[in-house]
Amino acid sequence: MTKTLTMAEIAAAIGGRLKGDGSLTVSRLAHPSDIQGPQDLVLAMDKALLPLLQNSPVRSVIVAEGAEVPSCILASIEVGRSRVAMAKMTRLFEEKVIVPAGIHPTAVIEVGAKIEPNVTIGAYSYICAGAQICAGTIIHPQVYVGPKVKIGADGLIYSGVRVGSRVRIGARCIIHFNASIGADGFSFVTPEMGSVEQAKSTGEVGLSTNVELIRIASLGSVVIGDDVEIGANTSIDRGTIISTTIGNGTKIDNQVQIGHNVTVGENCMLCGRSGIAGSAVIGNRVVLGGAVGVADHVKIGDDVIVMGMSGVAGNVSAKSIIGGIPAKPRGKMIEDMRRLNRINRLVEKVEELTRRIDELEGKG
Amino acid sequence: MTKTLTMAEIAAAIGGRLKGDGSLTVSRLAHPSDIQGPQDLVLAMDKALLPLLQNSPVRSVIVAEGAEVPSCILASIEVGRSRVAMAKMTRLFEEKVIVPAGIHPTAVIEVGAKIEPNVTIGAYSYICAGAQICAGTIIHPQVYVGPKVKIGADGLIYSGVRVGSRVRIGARCIIHFNASIGADGFSFVTPEMGSVEQAKSTGEVGLSTNVELIRIASLGSVVIGDDVEIGANTSIDRGTIISTTIGNGTKIDNQVQIGHNVTVGENCMLCGRSGIAGSAVIGNRVVLGGAVGVADHVKIGDDVIVMGMSGVAGNVSAKSIIGGIPAKPRGKMIEDMRRLNRINRLVEKVEELTRRIDELEGKG
Amino acid sequence: MTKTLTMAEIAAAIGGRLKGDGSLTVSRLAHPSDIQGPQDLVLAMDKALLPLLQNSPVRSVIVAEGAEVPSCILASIEVGRSRVAMAKMTRLFEEKVIVPAGIHPTAVIEVGAKIEPNVTIGAYSYICAGAQICAGTIIHPQVYVGPKVKIGADGLIYSGVRVGSRVRIGARCIIHFNASIGADGFSFVTPEMGSVEQAKSTGEVGLSTNVELIRIASLGSVVIGDDVEIGANTSIDRGTIISTTIGNGTKIDNQVQIGHNVTVGENCMLCGRSGIAGSAVIGNRVVLGGAVGVADHVKIGDDVIVMGMSGVAGNVSAKSIIGGIPAKPRGKMIEDMRRLNRINRLVEKVEELTRRIDELEGKG
Repeated sequence: MTKTLTMAEIAAAIGGRLKGDGSLTVSRLAHPSDIQGPQDLVLAMDKALLPLLQNSPVRSVIVAEGAEVPSCILASIEVGRSRVAMAKMTRLFEEKVIVPAGIHPTAVIEVGAKIEPNVTIGAYSYICAGAQICAGTIIHPQVYVGPKVKIGADGLIYSGVRVGSRVRIGARCIIHFNASIGADGFSFVTPEMGSVEQAKSTGEVGLSTNVELIRIASLGSVVIGDDVEIGANTSIDRGTIISTTIGNGTKIDNQVQIGHNVTVGENCMLCGRSGIAGSAVIGNRVVLGGAVGVADHVKIGDDVIVMGMSGVAGNVSAKSIIGGIPAKPRGKMIEDMRRLNRINRLVEKVEELTRRIDELEGKG
Repeated sequence: MTKTLTMAEIAAAIGGRLKGDGSLTVSRLAHPSDIQGPQDLVLAMDKALLPLLQNSPVRSVIVAEGAEVPSCILASIEVGRSRVAMAKMTRLFEEKVIVPAGIHPTAVIEVGAKIEPNVTIGAYSYICAGAQICAGTIIHPQVYVGPKVKIGADGLIYSGVRVGSRVRIGARCIIHFNASIGADGFSFVTPEMGSVEQAKSTGEVGLSTNVELIRIASLGSVVIGDDVEIGANTSIDRGTIISTTIGNGTKIDNQVQIGHNVTVGENCMLCGRSGIAGSAVIGNRVVLGGAVGVADHVKIGDDVIVMGMSGVAGNVSAKSIIGGIPAKPRGKMIEDMRRLNRINRLVEKVEELTRRIDELEGKG
Repeated sequence: MTKTLTMAEIAAAIGGRLKGDGSLTVSRLAHPSDIQGPQDLVLAMDKALLPLLQNSPVRSVIVAEGAEVPSCILASIEVGRSRVAMAKMTRLFEEKVIVPAGIHPTAVIEVGAKIEPNVTIGAYSYICAGAQICAGTIIHPQVYVGPKVKIGADGLIYSGVRVGSRVRIGARCIIHFNASIGADGFSFVTPEMGSVEQAKSTGEVGLSTNVELIRIASLGSVVIGDDVEIGANTSIDRGTIISTTIGNGTKIDNQVQIGHNVTVGENCMLCGRSGIAGSAVIGNRVVLGGAVGVADHVKIGDDVIVMGMSGVAGNVSAKSIIGGIPAKPRGKMIEDMRRLNRINRLVEKVEELTRRIDELEGKG
């Protein structure tokens, strides 16, 4: 059941400029390399892709402002910022993943859980006592919602998600397959000074051996703001005394690991496989590239960008762009690479000077 | 219920050369350090392990060509390439994980799903409307198969796997515990130029702040070829317009992250914890070592090897061997390490030259 | 249902020194920044936090030895090593996650599984034939326990955990959301020399192309000791012939990947996102920092500390502290960073010498 829309409707919805026949209908978004027929609306905001349409059955296209379209095109829509147009277009044609409305007869809702109106709960999902699922939220099959959890309105929780005890999730959050929200923090202590403590204070492991690891339980929880998205197989641990917190609007990719007591601000983007160790504080609008690591207790200021594959070992001031292991300002990182490349020339230069001194000494 | 085979049967099955009593039976493969009794068939293709058998109850052994076996051995099989023999031996003695045949009464199969003959579906698995499970496929308990998904013939899907809407999986694929195939891509755009765009164009975050992150929905899906294996807790995201694709015969380890729109070729090996960011294109027979990262839009040619823990930031030509962060040709990476080690000698050399010049100037 | 305890009871339980009114009751542990009322017992072992209590309703506090408490405090407990006190305090106030006792009517227990007394099995969990769940173990909802698995006494297995065929788990183990124990190892071989083998022996990929990847099946299993904790979304693969083993008391964080045939010793701490490739041997009391990678077949001695984001490519002797990619002794790693910083001064120095030689030559 695909959507069919007129070009005029689409132009109005995405705020683009229609040229040609606005009554033309389309029912599928297509890349110029994957055209199936005249019902395709082709995304060709990149001008280089337009020649691909020349002998195609395509009649409708989205283009950048001022683009020349091939003669076969009967209707086009010109847009400004192409990825913004893409966002609007994909939203327009998006099909929600179907899950039968209402509470599936196999879903187990423990006594004392509060399910608000218009909530969907899929097959084999399990909702513990004291949990609250707010209006409009869709919980797919095989999800676990722990005791006293609150999931805000209009949420979307995919299959295999686990939400631990007392976790609070805001409105309109999306959580993908097999994410783990609210497992216990990884926190242990040795009865006497352990090897890592010794190493930090003396530079050596010394005599200390971690023969006993005492567990610190996690009494805190996880508090997640509104409009947060959390990727597949991502883990966010609960806090020790206070809660781990994720600010409004923050987007978290797949396989991200967020440790106990961490605070992440608003509108951050944490790319895939990044990890934040215990008690770190991440500001607002911070971008962590893929596979970035942030050490425990580190503070990262607002609007910082950490380049992919970097390791952040110390505090970072607002608006910095940093990279490397350990991460340094981008300029310094590039300078270090250049330095390494200078060594060969330096070796040659010193050899030349040696020859010249040899000669001077011979003359002397 | 272990298998019992004669040494003659085994020699024939693995293409090895039998010596001694071919009627001898064995029922277990064993490492020389873990012998339990005379029913063990010991793998000792490494000659150094043979002395371990001297006073053991072992009577049967697999050895390298020309190896001398201890006198207690009554039957031996000589093999060529030892890991190929290992592959054949393990296949011979492999016991499939039992799951009751047929469709478990608790499995939920939505109306409109097509289940072909000889399919097994385990307890509490959920198959959405429009899905097609081809003949001979085994789906273990607690699996989620989304709407319109197709899983090819003779597949093996372990517990906790999630397969998102419209994903196509080829024949004979194996997918391990808690893998996520077809979650949404991680794709957002800011209304005006965002901080990462600013950083790329000016080197600074500037005034741009990511105060709004607009979601780009994932209309594409994931297309997986035949004979693909996907590890536990691995995630493969769906594409934006086109589909993310994995070629025939490619093997993916645990905790690998593959972003939206990525193309992976045939017969690749992606080792554990590696990650490929959005829209990257990986050729055929590429090997990514453990924890490798590939940046978005990067193209990697056929037969490339990326060493473990490396970060690939730019395009890579076919048959390259690269390593480091950012990854460079292996020769250059080793040269860079050597350069660093040369600096101390260079400092000494320059000090010596300074002394000699001091002297020359004094003389002058 | 929070716990209410007197300050005298708490002092006795954690071995601290009580000052003031031991009959005072508290029912919640609180951080000084998150005080809710007089029932809070505030953790202020860091003296800098004590001023926060000045005008608060708090009456009870845990402090470091000799700390001066504000006048509003009616009872305090002085403790020695603060994180040890924290561990004892959190254990005292910990609330176990509720799961209805006994075997949930929806749990599927296959014929031939052995469930000992006082075992809890949650909704939609699936226990295969031949599995043994020992006394006192709690299995949360939606867990998969494979054929012939043994889970020791007093274990705690959270929702979404998958335990593969024949895995043995010791007593008192805790396994968090969506962990995968006992998926198949990632092990393939090419019929002739493959590209990685060629690269190792000749430095080039050569003509070898991995056109066929033959699967080596995993006949071994996973053996986990007593008192082991395993984090969310972590994966531990089964061995090929022998089993992958994890020693008593070892603690494993989230998203850790442990390959086939690996041996991990006792009381290790493997931090989040670390990975250990096939057949590596990790000693006792080893600490792997976050996102560390260990190459296949590497041996790491007892009491080694590997700094976060490092890659271990070769064997490591006991009690070493190592870091970097590839990891080297910490002293050498710091020296390498210093060397890089010396290059600029060296360039200046060489320029100066050049000028002086120019002058000498001009004079000559």
